[in-house]
Amino acid sequence: MALEFFGKTSEKFPIPKTMKAWVLGDPDNLSLIDKQVEMPNKAEVLVKIDAVAICATDLDVISHGPPAMIEGGLPFNKNFTPGHEYMGTVVALGPAVDEFEIGDRVTVEIHSGCGQCKRCRMGMYTSCHNYGLNYGEVNKGHRANGFTTDGGFKQYAVNNINTLIKVPDDMSDEEATLVVTAGTTMYGLTELGGLIAGESVVVIGPGPIGLLGVAVAKALGAGPVILIGTRDSRLEIGKKLGADHTLNVKNEANVIQAVKDIVGTKGTDYVVECAGTEQALNDAIMMTNRGGKICLAAFPHKPISINIPHMVINNIYMYGIRGEGKSATHRAIEFMKQKRFDASLVHTHTFNLDELPKALKYARERIDNAIKIVIKPWS
Amino acid sequence: MALEFFGKTSEKFPIPKTMKAWVLGDPDNLSLIDKQVEMPNKAEVLVKIDAVAICATDLDVISHGPPAMIEGGLPFNKNFTPGHEYMGTVVALGPAVDEFEIGDRVTVEIHSGCGQCKRCRMGMYTSCHNYGLNYGEVNKGHRANGFTTDGGFKQYAVNNINTLIKVPDDMSDEEATLVVTAGTTMYGLTELGGLIAGESVVVIGPGPIGLLGVAVAKALGAGPVILIGTRDSRLEIGKKLGADHTLNVKNEANVIQAVKDIVGTKGTDYVVECAGTEQALNDAIMMTNRGGKICLAAFPHKPISINIPHMVINNIYMYGIRGEGKSATHRAIEFMKQKRFDASLVHTHTFNLDELPKALKYARERIDNAIKIVIKPWS
Amino acid sequence: MALEFFGKTSEKFPIPKTMKAWVLGDPDNLSLIDKQVEMPNKAEVLVKIDAVAICATDLDVISHGPPAMIEGGLPFNKNFTPGHEYMGTVVALGPAVDEFEIGDRVTVEIHSGCGQCKRCRMGMYTSCHNYGLNYGEVNKGHRANGFTTDGGFKQYAVNNINTLIKVPDDMSDEEATLVVTAGTTMYGLTELGGLIAGESVVVIGPGPIGLLGVAVAKALGAGPVILIGTRDSRLEIGKKLGADHTLNVKNEANVIQAVKDIVGTKGTDYVVECAGTEQALNDAIMMTNRGGKICLAAFPHKPISINIPHMVINNIYMYGIRGEGKSATHRAIEFMKQKRFDASLVHTHTFNLDELPKALKYARERIDNAIKIVIKPWS
Amino acid sequence: MALEFFGKTSEKFPIPKTMKAWVLGDPDNLSLIDKQVEMPNKAEVLVKIDAVAICATDLDVISHGPPAMIEGGLPFNKNFTPGHEYMGTVVALGPAVDEFEIGDRVTVEIHSGCGQCKRCRMGMYTSCHNYGLNYGEVNKGHRANGFTTDGGFKQYAVNNINTLIKVPDDMSDEEATLVVTAGTTMYGLTELGGLIAGESVVVIGPGPIGLLGVAVAKALGAGPVILIGTRDSRLEIGKKLGADHTLNVKNEANVIQAVKDIVGTKGTDYVVECAGTEQALNDAIMMTNRGGKICLAAFPHKPISINIPHMVINNIYMYGIRGEGKSATHRAIEFMKQKRFDASLVHTHTFNLDELPKALKYARERIDNAIKIVIKPWS
Repeated sequence: MALEFFGKTSEKFPIPKTMKAWVLGDPDNLSLIDKQVEMPNKAEVLVKIDAVAICATDLDVISHGPPAMIEGGLPFNKNFTPGHEYMGTVVALGPAVDEFEIGDRVTVEIHSGCGQCKRCRMGMYTSCHNYGLNYGEVNKGHRANGFTTDGGFKQYAVNNINTLIKVPDDMSDEEATLVVTAGTTMYGLTELGGLIAGESVVVIGPGPIGLLGVAVAKALGAGPVILIGTRDSRLEIGKKLGADHTLNVKNEANVIQAVKDIVGTKGTDYVVECAGTEQALNDAIMMTNRGGKICLAAFPHKPISINIPHMVINNIYMYGIRGEGKSATHRAIEFMKQKRFDASLVHTHTFNLDELPKALKYARERIDNAIKIVIKPWS
Repeated sequence: MALEFFGKTSEKFPIPKTMKAWVLGDPDNLSLIDKQVEMPNKAEVLVKIDAVAICATDLDVISHGPPAMIEGGLPFNKNFTPGHEYMGTVVALGPAVDEFEIGDRVTVEIHSGCGQCKRCRMGMYTSCHNYGLNYGEVNKGHRANGFTTDGGFKQYAVNNINTLIKVPDDMSDEEATLVVTAGTTMYGLTELGGLIAGESVVVIGPGPIGLLGVAVAKALGAGPVILIGTRDSRLEIGKKLGADHTLNVKNEANVIQAVKDIVGTKGTDYVVECAGTEQALNDAIMMTNRGGKICLAAFPHKPISINIPHMVINNIYMYGIRGEGKSATHRAIEFMKQKRFDASLVHTHTFNLDELPKALKYARERIDNAIKIVIKPWS
Repeated sequence: MALEFFGKTSEKFPIPKTMKAWVLGDPDNLSLIDKQVEMPNKAEVLVKIDAVAICATDLDVISHGPPAMIEGGLPFNKNFTPGHEYMGTVVALGPAVDEFEIGDRVTVEIHSGCGQCKRCRMGMYTSCHNYGLNYGEVNKGHRANGFTTDGGFKQYAVNNINTLIKVPDDMSDEEATLVVTAGTTMYGLTELGGLIAGESVVVIGPGPIGLLGVAVAKALGAGPVILIGTRDSRLEIGKKLGADHTLNVKNEANVIQAVKDIVGTKGTDYVVECAGTEQALNDAIMMTNRGGKICLAAFPHKPISINIPHMVINNIYMYGIRGEGKSATHRAIEFMKQKRFDASLVHTHTFNLDELPKALKYARERIDNAIKIVIKPWS
Repeated sequence: MALEFFGKTSEKFPIPKTMKAWVLGDPDNLSLIDKQVEMPNKAEVLVKIDAVAICATDLDVISHGPPAMIEGGLPFNKNFTPGHEYMGTVVALGPAVDEFEIGDRVTVEIHSGCGQCKRCRMGMYTSCHNYGLNYGEVNKGHRANGFTTDGGFKQYAVNNINTLIKVPDDMSDEEATLVVTAGTTMYGLTELGGLIAGESVVVIGPGPIGLLGVAVAKALGAGPVILIGTRDSRLEIGKKLGADHTLNVKNEANVIQAVKDIVGTKGTDYVVECAGTEQALNDAIMMTNRGGKICLAAFPHKPISINIPHMVINNIYMYGIRGEGKSATHRAIEFMKQKRFDASLVHTHTFNLDELPKALKYARERIDNAIKIVIKPWS
């Protein structure tokens, strides 16, 4: 290994030959093994992982495979390490990398595009046309860590520098794992136009993306921001993150009317839909005003019957958002640095690396009101 | 009348006090009556209608009411004149109007926005938030001629100058009625980004909007342009209008694969969906590539089950388009002026004003392979 | 008057027949006279002016005429009332106006577009092609209050509802006069792309527009925000409004290098240039990075020699900004409502209506460190 | 060499070890030498150069160095091969390249971005922040062939696949060398908004970029398109390429007024400025309408005094364009494929590789009315 590595390391951060890593076998079958530590190539760094959060999509990946692979009918993605919301410390630099220094704290985006396809050339690297082509004969260099390439439920990870965001000293490891979540909603709001100060935004579904969607919308100046959900405890967190109003659908005879009572009879300018149910999506369409826009930020599992006629008559646009993109994470972390909102409000539990199965159970069953669960691989 | 009119008329175009006009009573109940000719106010002109085409939406309006009114549960729109695809000659100018001269040939857009709502102030006048508020106590000035205000199945019409497009001498009356149809697809392609030269575009549904969608996409430089339909006769017209390939779904085992055989396995960059069926819409989603975009240009009559998961996983965006907008008609007519395509290929029949019921029957039943039927109110 | 007025008034706000108004005769010749109070027409309201601020452009208008008129070689604009940064209370509604209620506190934009020209139809109402055509035979309806139509150094003003922004109860009159100033920089940043969170922004020139430019850039998440000027007292205010760094050009051997020392050797992403000097503009060009953008927000009085080669080689874009636009005032006031910055920091003096000449002298000579001076017409 | 090459070659195109190549020594000192043929790496191909055109910038590069290097005060760029407008045949593929096949005819863009900087990540690869960092210790992978890395006055060139555009069989080698020129104006028009059908466009300066600017503007549907120059012979070519009007400044007392006589008193919507003189640039500003836009597509050699006040008062934007970008070459070649204009009208002379010095003399002195001169390295 040493012979082939032309980059840079530091005595301050000695790099072991092997690390602890969870590896997926058959569905729902995870093993903690010793695995070789890879070294970074051109435009890459090695990250010592200090914290990794569990996303609802991780649960799907572990049980069913990554969404794009399931849909493509590809075989279950064995022998890889899931986990995509991680942060840590740069401990080795690939050749010519001077954008980062050893010792820098960083958090990560998921996607590194191939750099050659039409979408990457447009800056749409999360829509890379060589998605998944990262191994074997036709390696185009695409990586979606934790989806198509090894992710973060382990101790070290090689990352393309395009996926890195510097973390300031006064941001906790736990909060830093939430940057990609905030960045996903920032990407959604970017695609809706981005200039939402003074515009009405409804967020449906107070999971981590929805809650940080509230926070990001408010940071961008949206008003009013309305959060819709089914659990008062989560709606309360939404209020702390910036929601001007919350609506518990269990208490509302007609949630569309309840929104209009707040924003006016024309309806809302924007909806960020994070629930993924037929009811929520149609509510979104019916509460959006003429010329308004809807961001789809949840992965429903099957086709949904939606009110297309209403969309056409009212010139409504709908944006399927598969994750972060267009450097939105950099915009999101800036607001976090400036303390515009406290993302750590959605962090509820911390476990060590050995406890991953327990942590996944907490996440899946929402034990103890779990929202965001963080794994610390070195504790 | 003369006393109250502060605009300008010409001896060359004497204006009668009354005109012949079709008026809608109960559903499907049209009467030809004598009606007073109105005179134009500020920012308006009077148009002597030389030709008016029948759109599929006219059939809906006559039988069921305008789509927005049906959806809003409003009473059937009695005592008004339908018809929105008309052209003619300017015969009177409202006060201060110098953008047009008497004698100018013009064709029309449908929508004139209120000018005060948030959408009008953004240039989105077809998404006016005061849609339909044009009569009675709260007159905000919005007009959608042939939908919420009197349309063109008559001899004279008052139009806001914002709705007018000048017609060159060498363009026939019949062709000029098609500008708003071409403009609708131009608006759709504008919303998809507009810069489609060298990009793949699939048009589904070779009705007038679909056929002119092919023509406009090709004029903008798209390539390949693929037209999908069920009738060879219409597909042939599509070829003449610029389709590089046509696919008859009756002959294709798998139309999604057939598209990919032409554009490559990633799928097409854009789809303009003009069929409005569940099958067509889901085909559209499944043939669109990662990061691609779909324009919904048909009014389906009921909710449709669509593959939302595929949209989200693949970052696909979907744009409901309720008609022309953003001055797209001006861009469309320019290509027609420059003879980039021959829109008159979709014109099949001509009738006089008395024959409207017969003309509507031809349109509804597609008698004699009718595509676009034009009424000449003065022949 | 009463006979002709079809709108709505309230006993709570009786409207006198005449008011006190400053009227401009020859250059620099202002008289305080009694003038008739006009009543609002369609889409208009009557505003009782509670406060009006003095802008540097007012000084030019009073001494030389409005910029566009000087440039167009038009005669000096006699017999009109200058002043364009005013706010007040709605006291009468034109017919059909229901967007506002009598008693609403409002502040105003300057420009109301004609609504018919190509720019207004695009939503660019401050670039109206019928600029100034608001009186006489060819009245297209354009208004630029305080420039081409009567402004705010008086007690009542008729305003198109498009120019109104609602003011919350807890915002002072003085702060509300600053919305259009903040809106001007918001428009500039909008045209530069608007999505500036985490991007570097340099503001040159700490006048009111520059200072609020700092505030708006920071509210949008920009970082770092650097303010450049010549007076430490104003740079201090800039820090309070959100500048991360300030540079006094009197202390800097090389201000371009000083900026690069902060943002990195590539240069800054954006510059908002509010000084209008040759030095400042060329500094702006030379400190901007490849692909960066510059907003020109000052009116220099003569042609300036600029480094065009550097712009071309480095793909730099430059945006001339003539004032507010694209509803940017609505986005600006939202951040002010949410207390993201305290615009009132730039307000230094208050005078009553009779004292306008003295107030103008303070503004012109910057007596007592005057920045923003406000006139209260009723005190 | 063979041992290290992991890509693909074909017996059909045997690759010699050395080739003929022009190499620059001191300014204006070119030598024809034998040089080693390099082989392509990942995401690269080897192109056998069939034709290379001479651009005015080549003359500058040969006499003074590349513009960015002159400006940066860097040493003269010795020992490299200039020439950036070339086309040819793919004769070897780097590892994993399947976007092209051996035997494909291709033409090239100049710039290949680093893929990691903020501009590349936005799709702005021609504004790469690692411009020129392609050799030595800090190799970020940026290439601007013929500027910072070896160009096309030779027989073989390695190109990143991002720089390649496929050429159809029925397009001549000479015409294919013009794609990057057409692409440069397409990029300029893209940055101005791109949707210019029916809008007025003035092109100043009928060099190759200006002439193809006329062609591209017309292909996009602009109307009227006006070309301004000083030589009737070139204006005639402009007419054949789509100019609706031409103006010879030698015959016009007032070219600004002459433009307004055609487009109306408000002025033109867009100007593409390709002359680079103070007069031309100020004419451009003064003939542009309120809210209009100017593309700067020429490299003037020194600062220019321009009417900034007019830009600010009239909300005019100005875009410095350093070459092609945003895949505009792909849009340009599509119109060329569709025979919307005949770019070969600007090609006037052909020489073989040995004759480069003579060809450069023809270009520099415009001998025999030379416009575009092409070198054929294998004839």
